[in-house]
Amino acid sequence: MMGSAMCMPLCDNGHEVRLVGTHLDREIIERVAQDRWHPTLKRTLPDRIVPIQVEELAEAVSGVDLIICGVSSFGVEWFAEHAAPLIPEGTPVLAVTKGLAEEENGNLIPFPHWWARRANRHISFNAIGGPCTSYELADRRHSHVHFCGGDLAVLQSLKAMLETEYYHVSLSTDVVGIETAVALKNAYALAVTLAVGQQQRAEGEGGQLAYNPQAALFGQSVREMTELVGLLGGRPESVTAGIADLYVTIFGGRTRRLGILLGQGLTFSQAMEELSGVTLESVAITTRIARAVRGKAAQGHWPLDSFPLLLHVDEVINKGAAVKIPWHKFTSLA
Amino acid sequence: MMGSAMCMPLCDNGHEVRLVGTHLDREIIERVAQDRWHPTLKRTLPDRIVPIQVEELAEAVSGVDLIICGVSSFGVEWFAEHAAPLIPEGTPVLAVTKGLAEEENGNLIPFPHWWARRANRHISFNAIGGPCTSYELADRRHSHVHFCGGDLAVLQSLKAMLETEYYHVSLSTDVVGIETAVALKNAYALAVTLAVGQQQRAEGEGGQLAYNPQAALFGQSVREMTELVGLLGGRPESVTAGIADLYVTIFGGRTRRLGILLGQGLTFSQAMEELSGVTLESVAITTRIARAVRGKAAQGHWPLDSFPLLLHVDEVINKGAAVKIPWHKFTSLA
Repeated sequence: MMGSAMCMPLCDNGHEVRLVGTHLDREIIERVAQDRWHPTLKRTLPDRIVPIQVEELAEAVSGVDLIICGVSSFGVEWFAEHAAPLIPEGTPVLAVTKGLAEEENGNLIPFPHWWARRANRHISFNAIGGPCTSYELADRRHSHVHFCGGDLAVLQSLKAMLETEYYHVSLSTDVVGIETAVALKNAYALAVTLAVGQQQRAEGEGGQLAYNPQAALFGQSVREMTELVGLLGGRPESVTAGIADLYVTIFGGRTRRLGILLGQGLTFSQAMEELSGVTLESVAITTRIARAVRGKAAQGHWPLDSFPLLLHVDEVINKGAAVKIPWHKFTSLA
Repeated sequence: MMGSAMCMPLCDNGHEVRLVGTHLDREIIERVAQDRWHPTLKRTLPDRIVPIQVEELAEAVSGVDLIICGVSSFGVEWFAEHAAPLIPEGTPVLAVTKGLAEEENGNLIPFPHWWARRANRHISFNAIGGPCTSYELADRRHSHVHFCGGDLAVLQSLKAMLETEYYHVSLSTDVVGIETAVALKNAYALAVTLAVGQQQRAEGEGGQLAYNPQAALFGQSVREMTELVGLLGGRPESVTAGIADLYVTIFGGRTRRLGILLGQGLTFSQAMEELSGVTLESVAITTRIARAVRGKAAQGHWPLDSFPLLLHVDEVINKGAAVKIPWHKFTSLA
């Protein structure tokens, strides 16, 4: 969906776009080919795009200026195996994927670095972070994102290709900081929306919305995100892209629905049943980061008590715990 | 209203509370004396509080363990002149007031420091920052605040008096950082809600809510707040209290209404007419901080171009400018 939404700034800037689906997107590509209607994005794509099925991927990536990778975090392995080998050297990649890869030693690294190690030849892997939902990008709403990558000159050329009067692009060479911050926002959006569900349980769905508890969880999320970005080697200012992304993620989508169901008192497996069992990015990243935090803490490297909110959500997801926000663990005395 | 809401944690902890109104609160105190109903907070206060009119202020502050100052930023002069001289030395003050005082040389300082300088004798002035609306505190919703002051032992005694199972208290000796961050949130809540009004103008009030633009403004607010807190000498981690407070302030109250009206296209004077002309904290603090920023920039001390959002809102408020968000000034290239 986000990959398809990127057609808007690309076409508005006069580029020719080849929209290639994976094997999971066959019906979407068929429908787009028919009349440009994208059935999950629920928007009509620009006339000038060329919809392409996965069998023609090799031809599609040849002779292009830029490859945008639109897979979710569950597709990074597929992208490394089936797409990356086809990419001509010298053609930059810009990924919308949010998440972190786990190395065999338990270290977390951003996908651009993980792809680069897998590729075994020189390809410039870059990524987009920051608050931008696909629906609103497709509607050409003002959005401010960060492109991150190792080479500022490459980033500048990507900005020149993509920036429009509604799509605003900052650049950063802090790939670890930006990618960690925006990966974490999925975990913490789940955490903040627990308070929405708890409120609904206490007062009924028609009850007053409560913002003090949400804000307390938002503040705790910012503190934990800031510390995690620092521990992984990112710069403090990069956290802001994740904070803004957290803000936008709280207000919609399946992660919010899951958080509300858990806050209302459902167990994780009951909630997943309600959501038809589709695995969510927020669940995957919470599990992955909590595992890394516990591992590093066991080795004496990271302070376990800096992450009471993350670890509680992990217990709810992975140990069947009931939601019981550890409020008193959020206070500090300095 | 916030001063009155503080009766909840105080009474829940078994304290005797004397609730003193200013000369502006005469009718509220009369009504509370009658049947404990607080007409602007719209809640019944605990039975055990003692409502007191301003003429008996001197008697009210004698022999107490703590004085909570509940005036708004427009009442700090009154508090310094009429209340502070009555305070016995050794009795700590805890203020809920949010804002910054302007010194004659244009410097901005937190109210606890400003009151201490005015007092000419030793009184411990402390303050509360962080996301906590009076309505929700009165409803005993979970809230996480920061008490800040110069003496950690005093802060610990305040926490012991006030903390409950729903009122969670962190402590900080970074008075400048906490107080600057929470003062700024009023200015930036106005800025973020401009996007809500612009969206309503574009699509009608029943139109879809747009979060990408709000999140972009939220991110820019965090960047500008972080830089301002640093320039004034506060610690980076104190900004988080202001970020969480910004989150809660966006969702309700008169500042949101003003931001929406301005975003819809009304001039500032038209919008203020709609709001019956009552001066808002957000307007006062935006004006004051923008003046300080321009002053410091003129002297070559502060970078003017770090604050495009604040300066634009100031132009809308004080120079009759139409809302035109300077999106392209928010992007950075590093």
